[in-house]
Amino acid sequence: MLGRILTSLLPTITARAHCDLPCGVYHPMQARIEAESVKAIIAKYQSSNDEVFRQRAVLIKEQRAELVKHHLWVLWTDYFKPEHLEKFPDIQDTCWKAAKQASIVKRTVDLDEAKKLLALIDQIDEAWKGTGGPAATRLPA
Amino acid sequence: MLGRILTSLLPTITARAHCDLPCGVYHPMQARIEAESVKAIIAKYQSSNDEVFRQRAVLIKEQRAELVKHHLWVLWTDYFKPEHLEKFPDIQDTCWKAAKQASIVKRTVDLDEAKKLLALIDQIDEAWKGTGGPAATRLPA
Amino acid sequence: MLGRILTSLLPTITARAHCDLPCGVYHPMQARIEAESVKAIIAKYQSSNDEVFRQRAVLIKEQRAELVKHHLWVLWTDYFKPEHLEKFPDIQDTCWKAAKQASIVKRTVDLDEAKKLLALIDQIDEAWKGTGGPAATRLPA
Amino acid sequence: MLGRILTSLLPTITARAHCDLPCGVYHPMQARIEAESVKAIIAKYQSSNDEVFRQRAVLIKEQRAELVKHHLWVLWTDYFKPEHLEKFPDIQDTCWKAAKQASIVKRTVDLDEAKKLLALIDQIDEAWKGTGGPAATRLPA
Amino acid sequence: MLGRILTSLLPTITARAHCDLPCGVYHPMQARIEAESVKAIIAKYQSSNDEVFRQRAVLIKEQRAELVKHHLWVLWTDYFKPEHLEKFPDIQDTCWKAAKQASIVKRTVDLDEAKKLLALIDQIDEAWKGTGGPAATRLPA
Amino acid sequence: MLGRILTSLLPTITARAHCDLPCGVYHPMQARIEAESVKAIIAKYQSSNDEVFRQRAVLIKEQRAELVKHHLWVLWTDYFKPEHLEKFPDIQDTCWKAAKQASIVKRTVDLDEAKKLLALIDQIDEAWKGTGGPAATRLPA
Repeated sequence: MLGRILTSLLPTITARAHCDLPCGVYHPMQARIEAESVKAIIAKYQSSNDEVFRQRAVLIKEQRAELVKHHLWVLWTDYFKPEHLEKFPDIQDTCWKAAKQASIVKRTVDLDEAKKLLALIDQIDEAWKGTGGPAATRLPA
Repeated sequence: MLGRILTSLLPTITARAHCDLPCGVYHPMQARIEAESVKAIIAKYQSSNDEVFRQRAVLIKEQRAELVKHHLWVLWTDYFKPEHLEKFPDIQDTCWKAAKQASIVKRTVDLDEAKKLLALIDQIDEAWKGTGGPAATRLPA
Repeated sequence: MLGRILTSLLPTITARAHCDLPCGVYHPMQARIEAESVKAIIAKYQSSNDEVFRQRAVLIKEQRAELVKHHLWVLWTDYFKPEHLEKFPDIQDTCWKAAKQASIVKRTVDLDEAKKLLALIDQIDEAWKGTGGPAATRLPA
Repeated sequence: MLGRILTSLLPTITARAHCDLPCGVYHPMQARIEAESVKAIIAKYQSSNDEVFRQRAVLIKEQRAELVKHHLWVLWTDYFKPEHLEKFPDIQDTCWKAAKQASIVKRTVDLDEAKKLLALIDQIDEAWKGTGGPAATRLPA
Repeated sequence: MLGRILTSLLPTITARAHCDLPCGVYHPMQARIEAESVKAIIAKYQSSNDEVFRQRAVLIKEQRAELVKHHLWVLWTDYFKPEHLEKFPDIQDTCWKAAKQASIVKRTVDLDEAKKLLALIDQIDEAWKGTGGPAATRLPA
Repeated sequence: MLGRILTSLLPTITARAHCDLPCGVYHPMQARIEAESVKAIIAKYQSSNDEVFRQRAVLIKEQRAELVKHHLWVLWTDYFKPEHLEKFPDIQDTCWKAAKQASIVKRTVDLDEAKKLLALIDQIDEAWKGTGGPAATRLPA
């Protein structure tokens, strides 16, 4: 169950926001969707012999991986706060590794590198959940 | 349960993609997250008297609502295909209304308009699910 | 002459705008110019053997076709209104097809596909003219 | 009648392009449409007392005026070439003034400044026509 | 002289790049220039009574502060590498604080907050210099 | 020593700004950094046989060269003013040539063209310095 109570109903939680107002809405799934796109692009690249298709795959992968980086940066800078480091002391380093991994997937057509990126995003997702992210940053459906 | 089997494992499903390669990855949650942001911005606007804060709320709401429109356009143009119209004959009209509603939320600070936008996105989400979207367009976690 | 704003002289016409204020200014030529660019890029791609030139053609075509989609989305969402459907019942479907055709021209170096895109944009232009677009949405030169 | 013959049919004309491939497609109307938008925004700003509407007008005007500048820069840098200076020796200066005027309209809500911008764009349009722009850079309808 | 690329002359240094090729070019001055812009905008905001000017200051400050964040993210993710942590163990935390400070300057018109941002960027600049940044990542003039 | 005195301390100098508020901050180094990136990309392209790497080099070079053009346009339009033409009568022409050279480097993998671009940017830098740019448009470190 994703998200439950609006930030304004929980005044003691001060979530920062991807829109930097802050609006208080975050979800690592934004990064994951783009990373899934990167993985699917690599899979399609590998199974195609068409020159134009493969060139497009390279350029679109570049764009989607950049979006992964953007969403990771927002989580790192705006969602995670000093008090979260107590429970998740590695979160800064995980965000760093994940962003660097997003750079690596730009440079490769190796499917394993895309899988590593997804695994790192899932670690960040755990920290988001473990710090109350779903209830604090999403609206109930 | 979101997403299950990669497009490349299901060659008979020809999903188009938000990246237009097509990579085959889509999720209405991308639109919903931005629309939740819009709703939270309006709520914060209403409860603030700070002039700078309110001006920032107006401009950031404009940006997030534009992102809602973008994600809706991608679903309308790239995900939904003629064969989906049989099961969801109103889907074009719903996408149209949702995109127009995203324009309306740019112009207002009325919380009810943001709620209407979320409801329309949820209708599109139903059509995405009803056309096999989760299995066809997302990776298993 | 340039100072005359038709919108304010014609208060009974409530044109929505590509800038979503709404400012009331629209013209399908914005989509057509980008589509002409796509067609010219394909023609140049076909007549070149230079590897770098052809790669640049593929990536720039991607960008211009995306701009075509953007301008079509704006017309579909913002310019066309429910009352226009009476006179042009197919306009939603034509916009849909045109946007899908813009996706197709991203994926191909077939000149005929670019011509089909131009023809669809010209159909939309007809509907824009038939619904009073020139007088309602542009300033007199 | 706008545009007539494709660049590739006229190999002696070497038009550079707004997409920098170069694709060979240009039209000052791209700048003019955005400038008309600016003018309409100012008119609507002047006739509204709604605080949110006026704030949105200010921010959207900023964006449209920036697009005017972009289209003017492309014409100045990419379309106009040294050989054009013989027939239109003032064209560099006119482009310069027009771009500076686009900056001015960002800063004002004075309708006359928007009119001056349109007049300068029309001068550039004259030079575009006088240097064979329509035939060299647009496709026949 | 301009032709010399330090990177290729210094193969033991593996600088990553802001363009993620990696091209190997970085400079914290990119962040600093935008932060100076933010500071100047706040100063001008404080000394103006013009409503439109002040609204524009708020929105442009938002954009420049976002660019600060972008340049800081690139330095954090792409320039700084694990081996740099030995000499500058706090660099991750400094980047984090600087990016958070860039969010703060979006939200305020307090000149002191802009000064704090500049001071943090200067700390990052020290680390860039201390890790051989100037020789490894810029070309000689 | 770059930059010395804040614009607001020198009220007689009315510098326009890259952010068009105007904030009063400019530096040709923004263009130079991107041009250095272009040069480094070409050097790396020439020394690589990897197909994906070379395609990425082509597309990233396109982006960085576009950023060069943007920064040059801002200097040409916003920083340089009519009174500067007396001391630097060729500055308009130099900006024009530099922007055209930025288009050329998009189209080539010839290192000499990138060197020509850097040389032109350095000429503009001279004019920026000769018109008091460092003191008027940057903050003291």
